Amino acid sequence: MHENFMKIALDEAKRAADIDEVPVGAVIVKDGIIISQAFNTRESSKDATAHSEITAIKKACEALGGWRLIDCEMYVTLEPCLMCSGAILQSRIEKLYIGAMDPKAGAAGSVINVFEDYWFHHKCEVYTGILQEECSSILKEFFKKKR
Amino acid sequence: MHENFMKIALDEAKRAADIDEVPVGAVIVKDGIIISQAFNTRESSKDATAHSEITAIKKACEALGGWRLIDCEMYVTLEPCLMCSGAILQSRIEKLYIGAMDPKAGAAGSVINVFEDYWFHHKCEVYTGILQEECSSILKEFFKKKR
Repeated sequence: MHENFMKIALDEAKRAADIDEVPVGAVIVKDGIIISQAFNTRESSKDATAHSEITAIKKACEALGGWRLIDCEMYVTLEPCLMCSGAILQSRIEKLYIGAMDPKAGAAGSVINVFEDYWFHHKCEVYTGILQEECSSILKEFFKKKR
Repeated sequence: MHENFMKIALDEAKRAADIDEVPVGAVIVKDGIIISQAFNTRESSKDATAHSEITAIKKACEALGGWRLIDCEMYVTLEPCLMCSGAILQSRIEKLYIGAMDPKAGAAGSVINVFEDYWFHHKCEVYTGILQEECSSILKEFFKKKR
């Protein structure tokens, strides 16, 4: 089940790569049904906040008609940055499934772990390593072509 | 100068209070000119990401036609949360001027300081206490009425 949803997040990441964006994709699921999916469009939308997770959260809020994403789960191909991790906590997403880790900017264990440390009021369970190899290699391929 | 820009951020916060939103406002300045201003609309826009800072950053990106807010400064009436602090770092804002601190959720010194600790690649100078009393009392008034 988790791999199926991550595959859809990977499809989103591929759509990002197709338009020369860093290939990261996210999917939000509620009661086993996908309520939103998005990919990174920071360059093409010229918007510093347009990471896949933020766009997926905005779409999910729209789909549910409110800002609290209760009982929702996010699948994301790359460990979220600080901004996106903060947005995940703000939106009350309950579970987060991560593909590849991001040693340079990840805020779910790599640089910092804002989910495990109990600094913040809201909690979110985090699971890592879902289709890690596929999620990692799409990024590696992208940056290899860039060089 | 800093107080003048913070006063405009406070005017934004008042617009939030007028529509029953938690009164927080933000202004982004480049070369001494305001390029965007926004207030918190999380409830009315039904969007978990619609804090004043995120909206101000999106508007500033639009105004400048790109996602890098180089040489930009943000004035915000309340210490940013984790999401907004992450967005400030993502957008490369260079200086951040804060009104009131947020002991419960602030990520610029209260709960955590993501600007001082050198975990992340991008830096942003932070200045606190600009019109602190006014920025704090608009929030206190709001929550007093709510009780």
